[in-house]
Amino acid sequence: MTIKTNPVYVSTKDTAEHILSKYDNFLFDCDGVIWLDNKLIPKVDKFLQLLRAHNKKFIFVSNNSSKSRQVYLEKFAELGIHNISKNEIYPTCYSAALELTKLQIPLGSKIWVLGDEGIERELTEMGYIPIGGTDSRLDSEWQENHPLLTVDPEVKAVVVGSTKKFNYMKIATTLQYLLYKNKSIPFIGTNIDRSYPGPEGIILPAGGSVVNYMAYTADREFINTGKPSSDFLDIILQDQGFKREKSLMVGDTMYTDIKFGNDGQLGDGQGSLLVLSGGTKFTDLAKLLDNRSLEDESLVPSFYAESLTSLVELLE
Amino acid sequence: MTIKTNPVYVSTKDTAEHILSKYDNFLFDCDGVIWLDNKLIPKVDKFLQLLRAHNKKFIFVSNNSSKSRQVYLEKFAELGIHNISKNEIYPTCYSAALELTKLQIPLGSKIWVLGDEGIERELTEMGYIPIGGTDSRLDSEWQENHPLLTVDPEVKAVVVGSTKKFNYMKIATTLQYLLYKNKSIPFIGTNIDRSYPGPEGIILPAGGSVVNYMAYTADREFINTGKPSSDFLDIILQDQGFKREKSLMVGDTMYTDIKFGNDGQLGDGQGSLLVLSGGTKFTDLAKLLDNRSLEDESLVPSFYAESLTSLVELLE
Repeated sequence: MTIKTNPVYVSTKDTAEHILSKYDNFLFDCDGVIWLDNKLIPKVDKFLQLLRAHNKKFIFVSNNSSKSRQVYLEKFAELGIHNISKNEIYPTCYSAALELTKLQIPLGSKIWVLGDEGIERELTEMGYIPIGGTDSRLDSEWQENHPLLTVDPEVKAVVVGSTKKFNYMKIATTLQYLLYKNKSIPFIGTNIDRSYPGPEGIILPAGGSVVNYMAYTADREFINTGKPSSDFLDIILQDQGFKREKSLMVGDTMYTDIKFGNDGQLGDGQGSLLVLSGGTKFTDLAKLLDNRSLEDESLVPSFYAESLTSLVELLE
Repeated sequence: MTIKTNPVYVSTKDTAEHILSKYDNFLFDCDGVIWLDNKLIPKVDKFLQLLRAHNKKFIFVSNNSSKSRQVYLEKFAELGIHNISKNEIYPTCYSAALELTKLQIPLGSKIWVLGDEGIERELTEMGYIPIGGTDSRLDSEWQENHPLLTVDPEVKAVVVGSTKKFNYMKIATTLQYLLYKNKSIPFIGTNIDRSYPGPEGIILPAGGSVVNYMAYTADREFINTGKPSSDFLDIILQDQGFKREKSLMVGDTMYTDIKFGNDGQLGDGQGSLLVLSGGTKFTDLAKLLDNRSLEDESLVPSFYAESLTSLVELLE
């Protein structure tokens, strides 16, 4: 691990233009970068238009597993961002489905889901049969004779992701699959995110906390299909035909987004831009820089900026 | 750390009598040792009578935080075990209340609770004011304008323990307290248990998984007031006037019960007895012994037996 220099603060027209000229491909996190909860971050639409005008390519890579690519498209449209296609969006419900194929789980297999509809939709679209998930029988209070506590032996993998509708019934049924046959059923977790910025500035628990809960109670590891997984990045770069050295990851979270770009050697080792419009504040960055250990090097961004708003204003 | 010899299998009358003569004080875990779910493990009542007849002292130390000492007494009585007093029972809802006094949180303070009634009862009995907990307003689906998302600045500590009634509303409100004022409110977790044996042989998620969830999402450490905490053991030994070298911990879980006895140097370093009537099977013990690293030494019991049933049968 090499020691990185401190990140460049993108606060002048020159540095903003440098970024625009250096990279051909922009990978954007969504929550905290493109929008905050249900509001577009100001002028993000203009920034994307500017990228298009300069023949830049961009895609969206979100650790959120709750929304399918189709629902993402609808959200973008509602926020006034059009001209995006489904194959430019990589939420982790989709990467989980890709991982199942990579693990050679036969299409047509049943997959046990703890998570929201996004996972069910992407698995179905890929050709799998999700069970559990949003099944309303799991919304009940704890019942020790609940029919879904009996393992369906046809289930070939477990996918755990974000949901605000979790309860003990869902946790307990999922545990049965994770322990089944000496813990031999593959366990996919869609992300490792601890929390995210919610409405009115409050911080809310994120999907990685549910994944971590299941890993802890089952006492087993999981395959992370979200950022910062290098496998996930490799799939995306290949899929899009992006050159690694000409790509930049833009995100608001150091241990997922920035590490993703750094570990993946984007931009020849200068391929991560932290924006302070989401879950990370300047004091968090300063704290990391002041106390960094060797292990923290992969969390240090190449650049940081207030937001995409500030970036587009510098370029206007 | 010294390397322990392999545990002695208590399978003969001689070894059983050795145990009875060597120790004056017996510390029993409950779930998986005294009972399994709601059934007494056969002949446990006889074993306790035999201990009384030999002038042995015994107490119960449970990582369960859901039931207050009073409710434990009632459960013992229902299972036919009488002549136990409240001050011989140490569930972690009680140890959490003890910890609050040790942290010098003034009596009369509000304490935010994520957990069951047991915690509320013990905190109230100690003189604190529990809030959150079983408040039915928290049983609702996620509401981003929920009144309890606003932190009550009078709260002086957070206690998290077992509950089968958890949901996103409870998790999200608790997170607000854990993050409040730069994470300065003390965070007590009642145990680190991953899972426990439930009805019909199924394994269910335990309270430590909820504690771990909150620690992960808040990205902070907690004070563990359950086994294997040495502070907890010290309090119990002092409270009961038990001599360390004459005491034996009897439990079914190696990373909590056995480690508790071993780390606490009970029985002059020979003070832990694993019973296989609960969450740990012989294969689990064999796996530990085969692959043990130095770190695992504290998990290796001094003795193991099938159950208290087998022990009393050897002594009859």
